[in-house]
Amino acid sequence: MTHSKMTREEFAAFDAADPLASFRSEFELPEDVIYLDGNSLGPLPRIARERVAACVTHEWGNGLIRSWNDAGWIDLPTRVGGKIGALIGAEADSVVAADSTSVNLFKCLSAALALRPDRCVIVSEESNFPTDLYMAEGLSALLGGRHELRLIEDPNELPDALKDDVAVLMLTHVNYRTGYMHDMKAVTDAARAAGALTLWDLAHSAGAVPVDLATAKADFAVGCGYKYLNGGPGAPAFLYVAPRHQEAASQPLTGWFAHKAPFAFDHRFAPTDGIGKFLCGTPPVLAMTALDAAMDIWARADMDAVRAISVALTESFITLVEERCAGLGLTLASPRNAEHRGSQVSFAHENGYPVMQALIARGVIGDFRAPDLLRFGFTPLYTRFTDIWDAVEHLRDILETSSWDQPEFHARAAVT
Amino acid sequence: MTHSKMTREEFAAFDAADPLASFRSEFELPEDVIYLDGNSLGPLPRIARERVAACVTHEWGNGLIRSWNDAGWIDLPTRVGGKIGALIGAEADSVVAADSTSVNLFKCLSAALALRPDRCVIVSEESNFPTDLYMAEGLSALLGGRHELRLIEDPNELPDALKDDVAVLMLTHVNYRTGYMHDMKAVTDAARAAGALTLWDLAHSAGAVPVDLATAKADFAVGCGYKYLNGGPGAPAFLYVAPRHQEAASQPLTGWFAHKAPFAFDHRFAPTDGIGKFLCGTPPVLAMTALDAAMDIWARADMDAVRAISVALTESFITLVEERCAGLGLTLASPRNAEHRGSQVSFAHENGYPVMQALIARGVIGDFRAPDLLRFGFTPLYTRFTDIWDAVEHLRDILETSSWDQPEFHARAAVT
Repeated sequence: MTHSKMTREEFAAFDAADPLASFRSEFELPEDVIYLDGNSLGPLPRIARERVAACVTHEWGNGLIRSWNDAGWIDLPTRVGGKIGALIGAEADSVVAADSTSVNLFKCLSAALALRPDRCVIVSEESNFPTDLYMAEGLSALLGGRHELRLIEDPNELPDALKDDVAVLMLTHVNYRTGYMHDMKAVTDAARAAGALTLWDLAHSAGAVPVDLATAKADFAVGCGYKYLNGGPGAPAFLYVAPRHQEAASQPLTGWFAHKAPFAFDHRFAPTDGIGKFLCGTPPVLAMTALDAAMDIWARADMDAVRAISVALTESFITLVEERCAGLGLTLASPRNAEHRGSQVSFAHENGYPVMQALIARGVIGDFRAPDLLRFGFTPLYTRFTDIWDAVEHLRDILETSSWDQPEFHARAAVT
Repeated sequence: MTHSKMTREEFAAFDAADPLASFRSEFELPEDVIYLDGNSLGPLPRIARERVAACVTHEWGNGLIRSWNDAGWIDLPTRVGGKIGALIGAEADSVVAADSTSVNLFKCLSAALALRPDRCVIVSEESNFPTDLYMAEGLSALLGGRHELRLIEDPNELPDALKDDVAVLMLTHVNYRTGYMHDMKAVTDAARAAGALTLWDLAHSAGAVPVDLATAKADFAVGCGYKYLNGGPGAPAFLYVAPRHQEAASQPLTGWFAHKAPFAFDHRFAPTDGIGKFLCGTPPVLAMTALDAAMDIWARADMDAVRAISVALTESFITLVEERCAGLGLTLASPRNAEHRGSQVSFAHENGYPVMQALIARGVIGDFRAPDLLRFGFTPLYTRFTDIWDAVEHLRDILETSSWDQPEFHARAAVT
């Protein structure tokens, strides 16, 4: 893609032609901010603010305990799960919203390992989002240490890693640092051919790129509610279990919401049928309500259109940075080929941390990932092409005019 | 306690003398409701409504990702945990707010079992809240089934059950059905004498009765944020680990928030020091904010005063029901001795379900627990003595005037 001598007017024209442009007004976005961090925390949907307020004031305040039935709180995990499922190509009744991504990964990984009792290897990537690896480590220790976590350093090592001892291939579809995107169907096919089950983390995929779990024949998936889905800080996460596994699968966090008859208060556990057996405790209603509201925006967003604009945004950003910030020390750290890239772009810079701090001070919010990555998320529902233009101008100005005293990286960075 | 010929005027005088009366105005309570179900879902504190609105609008909407640091979201689990800890006699830095009660019980039970590797029995009560038993069952299966769940039917069986094979005594301090309250210190002493660790569920204790974990030398505890604490529907739960165990203890849900340096994104897990290692995934900020606000009310409530009023409320209720509803088929199902009773009272009635439905239709909200229990919670921060008087009048009127056609119990009952 060549856009030499691109102009801001050209970018404004892209905005004017953007079929998704009307979505932007559905979000609260501070006027002095260019927000390129929706891959970390999605902004506030106006409808979420309204629905949370109504939930607090009317459902909790006035309805009190009656709202479990009258306001449908009891069904939130499956109702919200169904909305998420529709966005990620899941079959009906195969997704629930619940707990955190970490906890859901624990459930799914436990279930997957139990379905492959004769195999003891979990394959993943060293560059996977750490909590996924940590949870696998914790589960493995709990199971007595007989499982091996086989970490590859590069996706090209996958074929070699998928030996006949692999129980589960556990991958994040889109890498949190680089935005590298696996070919979900091809990788799932390869895993299945090796007799392994797949567990996909869709934290940087749901609402970012088209996902079709059913077509890919994925086995399990988990994902995050607070990034591209805009469900609010620490929003409930979700999990997917392919319908073909739901009868045989079981998970160890057998809380009362997974029970066949939770209000019979039987002292023995008996799992409910279907995806509900992957629930655990009482759902966080306020948080779930915000996510539920956000999903009603997604119900009107065509993911192919989102992807088309996402690719145009990331392509434009890469081209513009390389054109206007040439010679200023930035190196593309994301795949250049859009086919292999999610909806984010990272550039390495030796002074990445202070550069990002300077950008944030000017209201251009991306984030930094050690040791040297400037990370920018592109979210077509509200990111404008002119935002990108302006962000790159700030970046260029900072790089041209600042000197760096190598401040130490602050470990209390923003939450991915 | 004898109050024969009690009058409503007498109850109004109790209200007038109630040292906690001013707290009532801090809660939203519908005018047409007498709410005796705060042991299931606490009502909305006005401050929680304000703080959630501010969190949504300003922290999320305007602060965006910056609020993880600027608004202190990152510290919510320990900050809220500290406030809860102060209410339950916990040492500093020994409580976190996180996840659900079920998930927290899984963490604590795992940790406790690992500290007693040579013992394979978990003792609990058949009448314990089911999710606790279910989680123990799930964990036990995951550990290969070598643990036995030894359930007693009556607290008197405890001494016999505490043999030298017991790893963990897992009890709910106040029973969810009957309100029976264990003597935490005596039972913990007995468990320790038998070489067992204790894991207390404080779901019906925190904010209901004085709890002093440190003095009792409890080992682990979990509890619920949405009942007496008024943290909102499905509020985050909490867990306690005695400081003396924190270094040796580990838990298997090793998510990134339990990591020593979560933002270093190391691919190997290394637990943080102290109670933080019992965290797991990203905290649910909106839900945590509501609980945080509610805890600021508790910071001003003296638990001895709360207990004194609670006992007066439950005693008055029992006396009044037995006086005014005599001969109408009610049998006290809670301990008659206040020393052994939490802050709720249950009466059995053969038509318990339709009786409770009739009460709720009149705005007197308690709840029903199969097969025959009418359950009423008493919450001194907002329950008035005159509420009790009026509730009992409704109960009497219903019992005297209604006939029952034995409608089937609806399994979709309210969430405890």
